[in-house]
Amino acid sequence: MSIEFDGSEIREWLKKSRPKRVLIQSPLGLRELAEQIGSMVSREGVDAFISSSPTWGGCDIAIEEARRVGADAIIHIGHAPFLPHVEFSVLYVEARYRDYKPLESLIEPITEALTGYKKVGVGMSVQWLNHLAKFIDDLSSRGYNAVAGEPGGHLIHRGQVLGCDYTSLKRIEHLVDCYVVVGSVFHALGAALISKKPVLMADPHSQKIEWMAERARRILATRYYMIQRFKEARRIAILVSRKPGQYMMGLAQKLKKILNENGREASIIVSDEIMMESIADFTYDAYINTACPRLSIEDQARFSKPLLLPVEAMVALGKTTWEEVLDKGLILNLTLTVHQSTNL
Amino acid sequence: MSIEFDGSEIREWLKKSRPKRVLIQSPLGLRELAEQIGSMVSREGVDAFISSSPTWGGCDIAIEEARRVGADAIIHIGHAPFLPHVEFSVLYVEARYRDYKPLESLIEPITEALTGYKKVGVGMSVQWLNHLAKFIDDLSSRGYNAVAGEPGGHLIHRGQVLGCDYTSLKRIEHLVDCYVVVGSVFHALGAALISKKPVLMADPHSQKIEWMAERARRILATRYYMIQRFKEARRIAILVSRKPGQYMMGLAQKLKKILNENGREASIIVSDEIMMESIADFTYDAYINTACPRLSIEDQARFSKPLLLPVEAMVALGKTTWEEVLDKGLILNLTLTVHQSTNL
Repeated sequence: MSIEFDGSEIREWLKKSRPKRVLIQSPLGLRELAEQIGSMVSREGVDAFISSSPTWGGCDIAIEEARRVGADAIIHIGHAPFLPHVEFSVLYVEARYRDYKPLESLIEPITEALTGYKKVGVGMSVQWLNHLAKFIDDLSSRGYNAVAGEPGGHLIHRGQVLGCDYTSLKRIEHLVDCYVVVGSVFHALGAALISKKPVLMADPHSQKIEWMAERARRILATRYYMIQRFKEARRIAILVSRKPGQYMMGLAQKLKKILNENGREASIIVSDEIMMESIADFTYDAYINTACPRLSIEDQARFSKPLLLPVEAMVALGKTTWEEVLDKGLILNLTLTVHQSTNL
Repeated sequence: MSIEFDGSEIREWLKKSRPKRVLIQSPLGLRELAEQIGSMVSREGVDAFISSSPTWGGCDIAIEEARRVGADAIIHIGHAPFLPHVEFSVLYVEARYRDYKPLESLIEPITEALTGYKKVGVGMSVQWLNHLAKFIDDLSSRGYNAVAGEPGGHLIHRGQVLGCDYTSLKRIEHLVDCYVVVGSVFHALGAALISKKPVLMADPHSQKIEWMAERARRILATRYYMIQRFKEARRIAILVSRKPGQYMMGLAQKLKKILNENGREASIIVSDEIMMESIADFTYDAYINTACPRLSIEDQARFSKPLLLPVEAMVALGKTTWEEVLDKGLILNLTLTVHQSTNL
């Protein structure tokens, strides 16, 4: 699907921020765009370096890499701004799909699936947001009361959803009977994990729609089982990612302290990319993941040890309850919820 | 195979260099040792962080990672010192095999294979170096004149070989009829690529011995073919790794200049780990690898585009000859050999 890309925006930014060396980052799938932007930056007389490191989101800005190669600015392709403050000049070049058709062709199946619902909350991964107004119009013209929520948290666009942030949906929860999330399974599944309202995935890539209740139920059953197993774990490793928007060293150290107070051994494991192949080589009984929640939700199935989110570890240690986690939404509870007094 | 590990050395280093926070790095396979050393460091009252990032050699010191987590010292497990100067306090904990038996049991097959040779140069990957004297004795007692060379280049031990440095072997080339390299295929293959003397691999892990001539011939044939293909390439990417011992940005920029002068487009691509999966997503016609030479030699087979070493690119551009590269040894020629005058 073709991507909208505004070269004049980049030229203006170069004129304004006058970098000497620019590092250009892109997710897999948008590497050709990185090459084109690299050539454009060079033509403007600025040194361009292209990163081949993976990047998974707006949280994953290559600050260490830019610093290492002496770049003083970063062009980050494919994701919306995420970090409130970065020491580097960063230009986010969002990748937005130009063509509405792959989404338009889902309108009929979506309205069939929405039978019985009237008030629909809409969320979209950033790639589809150019079509938010049109999509809401199309639902409205078919008799639905479709709404999108204002951004908040790590979000910056109305109606935007991330795999780790659904503030735009939570803000309209009292107004809607259900949600439609345009994006991948992961975006929709995350929404289902933070809300008791039904969530319909609409994926223009695969041309699939699916209610998320069953997938969410299976995930939550796994999470509950892993929490139970964590109770038996004696040696625990806390995973920390160096990615600027995922780096939670303070939280990791709090967790270590709480674990020690509860008679567990605890180590802190760091890396940029947390790869299951690398983690599998350690011998700890269980892991707490302070980095991207996606890791615990998507990768638990291929990892034999519990890989808990911080709040899940608090459930295992009796500091909060599973019911409360479910009530607040699994993914909204990324940090600690500790009811008993601790000296933190 | 069990590994020798000296705890008192670590305690002494901690007393002397008094770090506040230590980052502990280890290759896959030695992660349990990292856990043990982490516990020991903690017991000494020093904050320990364990890295789960991969590390592939003494060139691959996690300086960025240490800086990011606020560590002021690094314990690097499994490799010998490689870098002449590092801004951090780094303790290298080499992993040496305790048991001679896996090597001893190869003595008979080795001497059978060495029929006709008398003067034997010995090289070993660092893991086996505790047994260098014994191995030389065992060959000598069977009538061979076995010798090991002094270190140099990136090597620090007598008889040591790395995948990218065979100085200890080159130093004794005039004294020997052939080499025995104790280590993996890669160590022995590298030796065969830098010398016209026959190289026998002795791998105690797999209990295999093998003359390297045929493998080296196949590699060189592939290299030659890729050099020919590179001649047709118009858009070229130069790969740079951020790893402290592999970072060759100056070389990359020289290459870019030479490529431009020769009518090619050139971009510089950076990352820490150079992963073929990430590179494959770019659309350049060919690549020059300024990082670990292993990448060009081991990974070329699963990569469809030429992935040349810098000196090979110089052959493609007519700046030096393939014969001269062969004469000096492929891997010893990591940097540029440019005969024609260039204004660098």
